[in-house]
Amino acid sequence: MGEAGVAVVSRRGAERLRRGHVWVYRSDIAALPADAIVEAGAEADAPRLLTVNDTRGVALGTALYSPYSEIALRLISTEVLESEAAWLGLLASRLKAAIEQRQPIFTGTDTDASRLVFSEADGLPGLIVDKYGRLVVVQLLSKALDSVAVRIVVTETLRAALGPEVSVIVERPDPRIRELEKLSADAGSAPLWSAEEEPLLKTVFRLNGLAFHYDAAAGQKTGAFLDQRENYSAAARYAHGEALDVCTYQGGFALHLAQTCSRVTGVDVSHASLEVAESNLGLNPHLKAQVDWMEANAFDLLKDWSEAGTKFDTIVLDPPAFAKSKRAVEGALRGYKEMNLRAMKMLRPGGVLVTNSCSHHVSGAEFQAVVAAAAGDVGRRVRLLERRGAAADHPVVLTIPETEYLKCLVLKVE
Amino acid sequence: MGEAGVAVVSRRGAERLRRGHVWVYRSDIAALPADAIVEAGAEADAPRLLTVNDTRGVALGTALYSPYSEIALRLISTEVLESEAAWLGLLASRLKAAIEQRQPIFTGTDTDASRLVFSEADGLPGLIVDKYGRLVVVQLLSKALDSVAVRIVVTETLRAALGPEVSVIVERPDPRIRELEKLSADAGSAPLWSAEEEPLLKTVFRLNGLAFHYDAAAGQKTGAFLDQRENYSAAARYAHGEALDVCTYQGGFALHLAQTCSRVTGVDVSHASLEVAESNLGLNPHLKAQVDWMEANAFDLLKDWSEAGTKFDTIVLDPPAFAKSKRAVEGALRGYKEMNLRAMKMLRPGGVLVTNSCSHHVSGAEFQAVVAAAAGDVGRRVRLLERRGAAADHPVVLTIPETEYLKCLVLKVE
Repeated sequence: MGEAGVAVVSRRGAERLRRGHVWVYRSDIAALPADAIVEAGAEADAPRLLTVNDTRGVALGTALYSPYSEIALRLISTEVLESEAAWLGLLASRLKAAIEQRQPIFTGTDTDASRLVFSEADGLPGLIVDKYGRLVVVQLLSKALDSVAVRIVVTETLRAALGPEVSVIVERPDPRIRELEKLSADAGSAPLWSAEEEPLLKTVFRLNGLAFHYDAAAGQKTGAFLDQRENYSAAARYAHGEALDVCTYQGGFALHLAQTCSRVTGVDVSHASLEVAESNLGLNPHLKAQVDWMEANAFDLLKDWSEAGTKFDTIVLDPPAFAKSKRAVEGALRGYKEMNLRAMKMLRPGGVLVTNSCSHHVSGAEFQAVVAAAAGDVGRRVRLLERRGAAADHPVVLTIPETEYLKCLVLKVE
Repeated sequence: MGEAGVAVVSRRGAERLRRGHVWVYRSDIAALPADAIVEAGAEADAPRLLTVNDTRGVALGTALYSPYSEIALRLISTEVLESEAAWLGLLASRLKAAIEQRQPIFTGTDTDASRLVFSEADGLPGLIVDKYGRLVVVQLLSKALDSVAVRIVVTETLRAALGPEVSVIVERPDPRIRELEKLSADAGSAPLWSAEEEPLLKTVFRLNGLAFHYDAAAGQKTGAFLDQRENYSAAARYAHGEALDVCTYQGGFALHLAQTCSRVTGVDVSHASLEVAESNLGLNPHLKAQVDWMEANAFDLLKDWSEAGTKFDTIVLDPPAFAKSKRAVEGALRGYKEMNLRAMKMLRPGGVLVTNSCSHHVSGAEFQAVVAAAAGDVGRRVRLLERRGAAADHPVVLTIPETEYLKCLVLKVE
């Protein structure tokens, strides 16, 4: 890149970086080099890397630049990198470190799927890498990563670090993010490398000793439930009797509950998800007799059943993110309260409620408060058995609150 | 007690109870029966139990009454109990349930010490019962519990539930609380029951496979570190290299760290605590070579050593509660920030920080925010490995936030 251009960030933006965050919002940018300003709709050829200065000219580091996103800069180093090659070297070493850090996590868990790289949480903003069996799925979610050089470094580093543990590396676009970042629309997943002539985009992987399907060519997202792996185990430890898994998606909680419960009903509004759930159940035939699926809207079902007096011993609530923005938080909290209140009503004495929120706009404290309010309204004594988060392969960086998005409370309703 | 008197609570007080809390502050009491109003300094003969009504005469339940404490009423039932015998029956059944609930917690942990009853968290406000080996320690921390009948029920229920696991039951006064509740000052611990003629007030107990002394006749509090048992194990899982245990008290963290670290320095300002710590170390001779004690003020030591560039691989911070009241929170947060900032500076790359707060006036979110601010100031990337609380024998009731007082963050400082 030769000499990097300089972005000047406002006092507020600089303060945020000094507190250890890595994002600079567009509204906190005071000045950009001329070639970084791209007309809406124009084919962008903006620089990928910018040096970041405060308004007094003090260098704060080097950032990836997104010409369209509201998050304009993502700091990758508090030093001024001298060249694009320096950044590619950093990319390789952080990717390698991220993979190494995860190795001890999975010892003794009978699991061969994990998130290998989690974007900002691994110092690699915009890069997500998941592994399902020997199939590795790469997502490049920022304009600055959308280059041949990045793809080569990522592919080569993954191959070197994983060796025979990987047979296919595939790139998978996230349509929503690619729209935000104005990355070229893409028809689907594309192999970056394959050990076989015909790269297989489907596989079966193992999570806590259970088998699941993965299909890189289908579905809305990737790594959709690896973050719940440890919470699945925790739920199974406490679960008993008749269980209800609300928003079961592809059956993750339901299959785990079936190991310790006499009956499990997995509910989802999506017929397509339940078809995957059923085929996942087929991979674990020893659980077949315990599990049923039901296509229903979660709110309607909880309302009908709680009013009808239907009872369970264990209930899991794992709804999709209700609050996709700050503005939506109030509505999300109402939704959480209603779901949790209905579920508490439906539990027999001593029943277990495993309740989740993956809205990062709803804080852990807010979520717990709303669940406590539901407990107060129901008039039942509710014990907090465990307060959990995403699995350890989805690390949390203390100074980047957005890395801590998944909240899971394990409760006993007396 | 015949017919119970009636306490009328304000709208705010009633609302608090309806939301699932169990406390009524004196300022939220609208009316009390004549015999419940006790002159300051007079020898109290107030009723122990009161029926609680809202201002419209709707019954909210039955509460223990404290004539002197700021917390005047502690709800024990949402029903109107007809007699003192009904309350004693409830006491026996809740005590039995509390003990039963704890049994599965300790399987496979090589531990024979636990909190058997934790006051409000077990539906028994004012009652704390701890067990160290076969020595059981009872605390009656409310005027309403200060009766012969309560002592008999507690003693008999403990004996029946614990069988040969108990050889001595001793009552131990907490001078501070007894002052608040104006309970008679007491010289020391008094046996309630003993299997031996000479009841032993000292014992050795096991925690996670390590041995510790307990002396019911010494020290300021009881159960001082049972709440940290699971955090001790967690710390030992992540700890490595050279370790510093700040505010080691009687050596709980230090001894656990010594299992996985090459060197451990346990620091405390109290010479008496370090003497107990040293004698605890003596009970675990295989750890003897790794552990040193140092008498020092935590703030002074951290300042001196961080400025001198002293480095460690693992640091534990477990200071006493800085904030004993709402007003003291701001100062407490400053104290936490300074300690954590110094400790982060002193950690080698990849170092582990286990940082605790037992101030219940400082929320988990506030504590985490202040530790994150320290990370920002130090300019190091800090990962949250685990967010932990008190051990499972110190349960948390969702609608009683005060039951959630202990916060423990396990961090990796990169």
